[in-house]
Amino acid sequence: MELAGLSVREDAVGNIFGRWLAWWLKGEGGRKRWDGLEPELAAVATGSHIDAIPYSGKYDGVVGVLGAIEAIRVLKRSGFKPRRPLEVISFTSEEPTRFGIGCLGSRLLAGSEDLANSLKTSTDIQNISFLDAAGSAGYSKNEDDLSSVFLKKGTYSAFVELHIEQGPILEDEGISIGIVTAIAAPASLTVEFEGNGGHAGAALMPNRNDAGLAASELALAVERHVLDSGSIDTVGTVGILELHPGAINSIPSKSHLEIDTRDIDEERRNKVVEKIHQSAIKITKTRGVKLSDFRVINQDPPAISDEAVIKAVETATKELNLTSKLMISRAYHDSLFMARLSPMGMIFIPCYKGYSHKPEEFATIEDMSNGVKVLALTLAKLSSQ
Amino acid sequence: MELAGLSVREDAVGNIFGRWLAWWLKGEGGRKRWDGLEPELAAVATGSHIDAIPYSGKYDGVVGVLGAIEAIRVLKRSGFKPRRPLEVISFTSEEPTRFGIGCLGSRLLAGSEDLANSLKTSTDIQNISFLDAAGSAGYSKNEDDLSSVFLKKGTYSAFVELHIEQGPILEDEGISIGIVTAIAAPASLTVEFEGNGGHAGAALMPNRNDAGLAASELALAVERHVLDSGSIDTVGTVGILELHPGAINSIPSKSHLEIDTRDIDEERRNKVVEKIHQSAIKITKTRGVKLSDFRVINQDPPAISDEAVIKAVETATKELNLTSKLMISRAYHDSLFMARLSPMGMIFIPCYKGYSHKPEEFATIEDMSNGVKVLALTLAKLSSQ
Repeated sequence: MELAGLSVREDAVGNIFGRWLAWWLKGEGGRKRWDGLEPELAAVATGSHIDAIPYSGKYDGVVGVLGAIEAIRVLKRSGFKPRRPLEVISFTSEEPTRFGIGCLGSRLLAGSEDLANSLKTSTDIQNISFLDAAGSAGYSKNEDDLSSVFLKKGTYSAFVELHIEQGPILEDEGISIGIVTAIAAPASLTVEFEGNGGHAGAALMPNRNDAGLAASELALAVERHVLDSGSIDTVGTVGILELHPGAINSIPSKSHLEIDTRDIDEERRNKVVEKIHQSAIKITKTRGVKLSDFRVINQDPPAISDEAVIKAVETATKELNLTSKLMISRAYHDSLFMARLSPMGMIFIPCYKGYSHKPEEFATIEDMSNGVKVLALTLAKLSSQ
Repeated sequence: MELAGLSVREDAVGNIFGRWLAWWLKGEGGRKRWDGLEPELAAVATGSHIDAIPYSGKYDGVVGVLGAIEAIRVLKRSGFKPRRPLEVISFTSEEPTRFGIGCLGSRLLAGSEDLANSLKTSTDIQNISFLDAAGSAGYSKNEDDLSSVFLKKGTYSAFVELHIEQGPILEDEGISIGIVTAIAAPASLTVEFEGNGGHAGAALMPNRNDAGLAASELALAVERHVLDSGSIDTVGTVGILELHPGAINSIPSKSHLEIDTRDIDEERRNKVVEKIHQSAIKITKTRGVKLSDFRVINQDPPAISDEAVIKAVETATKELNLTSKLMISRAYHDSLFMARLSPMGMIFIPCYKGYSHKPEEFATIEDMSNGVKVLALTLAKLSSQ
């Protein structure tokens, strides 16, 4: 087998600017299959997501879906015939924006019973239920039993995801390809404080129990607990902090925070979660507010990449004369959950200044083409095994 | 003149539950006049506002508009003939909710050139301009020169406003009527921080400049500076704190705060404003964020009630056998600005637990009736002078 001359059609990868490929996968459950010479074998799968957070960039996820489609075309153009089937997956709702939990699609495929149950009653901020949203997107209303989408272990012999690094290391070091060895363990929390509110002029300071100041204190406590871990690998963020009623002349009577904390060490991350909880309780005592909600939305273990997948990616980069580096993914991805189903690996490409989740997010056509070539060659190797 | 037997129609005051009286004033510039025996004399005016902050109560302002209308009816039913004209005013936008500045209507009537200029380019959160909003509400588009609404000093011989106390003192002490001697001096600020944002997993803690944590620090600094004033009369509130992009897995790249601080001592309040500014600058240095906006939206002097108006209210309460108390208004009102145009006074009635700016706000029919009677008798006295 000779695939060293792989050619990527740059217009295909470059068309990252439209998220117009939804139609491509529509009505086929987000998965598209190329049957191999032995279609009864477990498939090799690849893919990512095309949804995004508000005010974000165009590359996070999209590179791994359009890139997967182009990798399949590369293989087809080269005349390659896979032994195992190849599948491209476009996961729904990788970002937690709409229903409050990230990697909704891959969590479900990986068989999360808890999520399948909780989604029956989940609604978005406009009070649209998850099941209605799925129906409107063309997915059958009869599939209200979400466990019907669970995949069996062994469905895939391997899963590989192409993604921008979302960090600055590859660009700083001038390296073309990052080979992910592990994905950091994320946890996300939602917290609500309640106080009596009142008029900003008339209520004197000693009589107040300001839910907004409680939230500000907790936000700063999150940062303190993360820094206290002593490890550069521990991170924590308050990305959402909302005050009610949200008027300049009204003392906040309610506050709502959403907190994200991650680490490559699960135990260390769980300690941060516990300390955040203790701080929230302490704040209720010092400020006389009520902790009306403290919920761990998810608290996932880290995922370790599969040795054989790492090896296949490494070999592909060598055959393509590309520089590469083994690295950790601090962001999490659908791969974190696909690892519960199948051997997993990830291919990173550099992105401008490491920017992600903001409009300045950018990857060059050259880096995307390199990523697609490595993905294509990796898929070729894995589907021939 | 004998008005001691004044009767208030309780259904009129009780109908506080609908804000349906807008039609009543529509198209008449928010002012309605009862010509007196000597219509060329300066009028006595009364009124308040019917707008409200989000999720607020039904009494703040509304009692002083419906109450003013009922007071005029009380006088008409009693056969009273005023010497001076009497006017009822329903001020627009007393709350700063829509266009960011409170007492928009009374500030303009009182001749604020700065406001008349800035409103030409003001828009609400939905990008509707102030001038378009005024047009949609039935006010002439030709009046784009807002200085046309300025009133001359001397237009009114007195202005009196009936209002709920928005504090607990009258209820606690079992007193029917509060006679306001001064209105505390309010200032409001808007502050914005900017940082680089980024991915909540991928950006390590030392590389962050989190605009959300900058906002939380400033919110707590506001509280500290207010408490450091050492006076129970100094208050400060962060009622609005917004993060951008507002996603759980994104480091806030922008934050927006709106801060309200008040005192009966203008100099002490100005010191708090200055300290808040210093803290904002300090935070830019410690957190590496940019202070992209720091604006004093308003920084008004306090207002002192007119001796003759206080005397008229005091006499009215005595003639009606009602208990009363001289007091300060910590909330500010349209009266603060009407005081720039005319001798001013305010009549407070008790409200449940001092609650205001929340749904639990409440005043009894009896207290509202007492307030209307005192207002009617006060208007009778002032319009006869």
